[in-house]
Amino acid sequence: MTVTNRVITPGMFIGKEGPDIISFGSGQPDLEPPFDIGDVLLNFNKFKYGKVGGEDELKSRLREYVKSEFGQGVEQDYIVVTNGASEALDLALRRISLRSDGSRVLLTKPYYYSYPELVKINHMVPVYTDANIDLEDVKEKSETADAMIINSPANPTGSTLEKDVLRAIQEITEDNSCVLISDEVYHSLTYETEHYSPKGENVVTINSFSKTYSLCGYRVGYVFSQDADFMAGILGIKAHSSMNTNLLSQKVALECLSVPKEHIMDNREIFRMRRDHIYRWIKELNLEIEKPGGAFYVLPKVGDSMKMAEDLFFDYNVITYPGEWFGAEGYLRLSFALPIEKIDEGMRRIKSYIDIL
Amino acid sequence: MTVTNRVITPGMFIGKEGPDIISFGSGQPDLEPPFDIGDVLLNFNKFKYGKVGGEDELKSRLREYVKSEFGQGVEQDYIVVTNGASEALDLALRRISLRSDGSRVLLTKPYYYSYPELVKINHMVPVYTDANIDLEDVKEKSETADAMIINSPANPTGSTLEKDVLRAIQEITEDNSCVLISDEVYHSLTYETEHYSPKGENVVTINSFSKTYSLCGYRVGYVFSQDADFMAGILGIKAHSSMNTNLLSQKVALECLSVPKEHIMDNREIFRMRRDHIYRWIKELNLEIEKPGGAFYVLPKVGDSMKMAEDLFFDYNVITYPGEWFGAEGYLRLSFALPIEKIDEGMRRIKSYIDIL
Repeated sequence: MTVTNRVITPGMFIGKEGPDIISFGSGQPDLEPPFDIGDVLLNFNKFKYGKVGGEDELKSRLREYVKSEFGQGVEQDYIVVTNGASEALDLALRRISLRSDGSRVLLTKPYYYSYPELVKINHMVPVYTDANIDLEDVKEKSETADAMIINSPANPTGSTLEKDVLRAIQEITEDNSCVLISDEVYHSLTYETEHYSPKGENVVTINSFSKTYSLCGYRVGYVFSQDADFMAGILGIKAHSSMNTNLLSQKVALECLSVPKEHIMDNREIFRMRRDHIYRWIKELNLEIEKPGGAFYVLPKVGDSMKMAEDLFFDYNVITYPGEWFGAEGYLRLSFALPIEKIDEGMRRIKSYIDIL
Repeated sequence: MTVTNRVITPGMFIGKEGPDIISFGSGQPDLEPPFDIGDVLLNFNKFKYGKVGGEDELKSRLREYVKSEFGQGVEQDYIVVTNGASEALDLALRRISLRSDGSRVLLTKPYYYSYPELVKINHMVPVYTDANIDLEDVKEKSETADAMIINSPANPTGSTLEKDVLRAIQEITEDNSCVLISDEVYHSLTYETEHYSPKGENVVTINSFSKTYSLCGYRVGYVFSQDADFMAGILGIKAHSSMNTNLLSQKVALECLSVPKEHIMDNREIFRMRRDHIYRWIKELNLEIEKPGGAFYVLPKVGDSMKMAEDLFFDYNVITYPGEWFGAEGYLRLSFALPIEKIDEGMRRIKSYIDIL
């Protein structure tokens, strides 16, 4: 096998499955959705264009949900339902990019790998601050940035930011007239503290049904803020770039909002057990690691992470994501959204790889 | 009623319905989808991320369809399934915008109203040539344009371009290294000639399930070309901006490709009758009009089109779209995607408005 053949890319691993492959790669729940999709859509007969911002019934229920879950009061008109959190984030960045050319967007590093790409796709420039927040650095850099993206619980670290840190970031960015985009798609998966959702005039919140209800493939997310003008701008873009989010998934999403909270809590306990389990494995391997407070990722320090990810894939049938893809060279991202038995099998293989190094 | 209250916008009319409203507004079929959606999705149980470019089975069938319907041979990998034709077009423009700053995109005028907006959202500059094609003008303007969008059958005119004109445009743009984006969402609705799909190295084809199968609300379109690099670029953008197109609609789209061609032909006959019917009405009103060769729009010349659209809506409960929205001042767009009885009722109201002018 030549070196060229051993190159790995994120695209190679999306939806990658096989009888002997253990995947710590994909960032999506393996647990099933909370109900039978066919049942929900049994007599569904809408087929015409829907409203660009989303179906009224879904938005009305979302408004209540946002109030009770995130403590945020928001007008129904200021919620826009999107093709997943990806489009929500893209629309927010797009809106910002249209204000002036060459805007700067502040990202915490390590970052979810789409962040810098989306900034660049939108003709803007990414700048970075440490994910282990230094408020002075945020203050300085947000002065010349048009927006900042935060992500708590975070991909790829699994870390959560404390409430007072989130509040301080919100105040600093507001003082600097910097839009604060808060990506909270992992909000239902926190293991140590309750999720805190930043609030303020400059805050734009991104969320999704994907991670909470195991619906990644159906692509339903949403974006909201208190800023009428900002949201009108987003709606104006979406009216041309994709129109309404598909009605089938919106119907499924509506049904999700009636799922008892216990279901979400039960799922969280499953992920907590997996977290504790994979954490013990990694400690046993003597790798440096911070215990993640949320999401379903661990990010141990491994040394040559790109080589390790390549070797693990080509020689051990184990998918992991090298930290390089997230601005975290030397670290390896492992998703623990898979059953304990598979975690065990995957970690045994990783152990045997490390043992012969 | 004050003047301010009588302002109309496209957003006001999307999905607008009422017991006494006659809408010649919305650009979508009123005919039902070819099968029961619930049946198609009865035992559907995929919920994880799908491939960014679309599900293999759908793309494999699409490849055959593109070959038989459009006479275009295209690699399966060079087809990308999108959130409707809107996203397909947006992705193509986005891809072009990332090549260099301030690119120019040539549009035919009158245009579908999203075209200039999408060009601007993508940080590019729209330039215009007459929809009644002047090849010399196309030649001159495509020299400095990075892309040109054509749309046959066209929105808002309903006109179709002849095969030799389409071929000439393709050759001219290819000579000028100008990407030719061919938006063919109305391909199944041609009344005089068979649809012709431009072919060539520089051609990017946009299509959709929305108009042919009455699935506007489900948002499934696709984009393809012969240019591997261009399509890889589109895939690279979509991987961050929206990820896979929702799986539920892709499953419905797959089912569409098994619908007998007779169904599509029957629908076309329904639209042809409506076209002939509304055309007679408009001739009777002594309005200047070209008989549309495709799609489901007529664009009569009416004089003060903005005032007429406003008056018709506020005083007669009739929705029409002023030509201003399409770069066609003085003209009024009427969609005839509604039953003959409703066309009659709407046209009677328009007649009574014109009679008292």
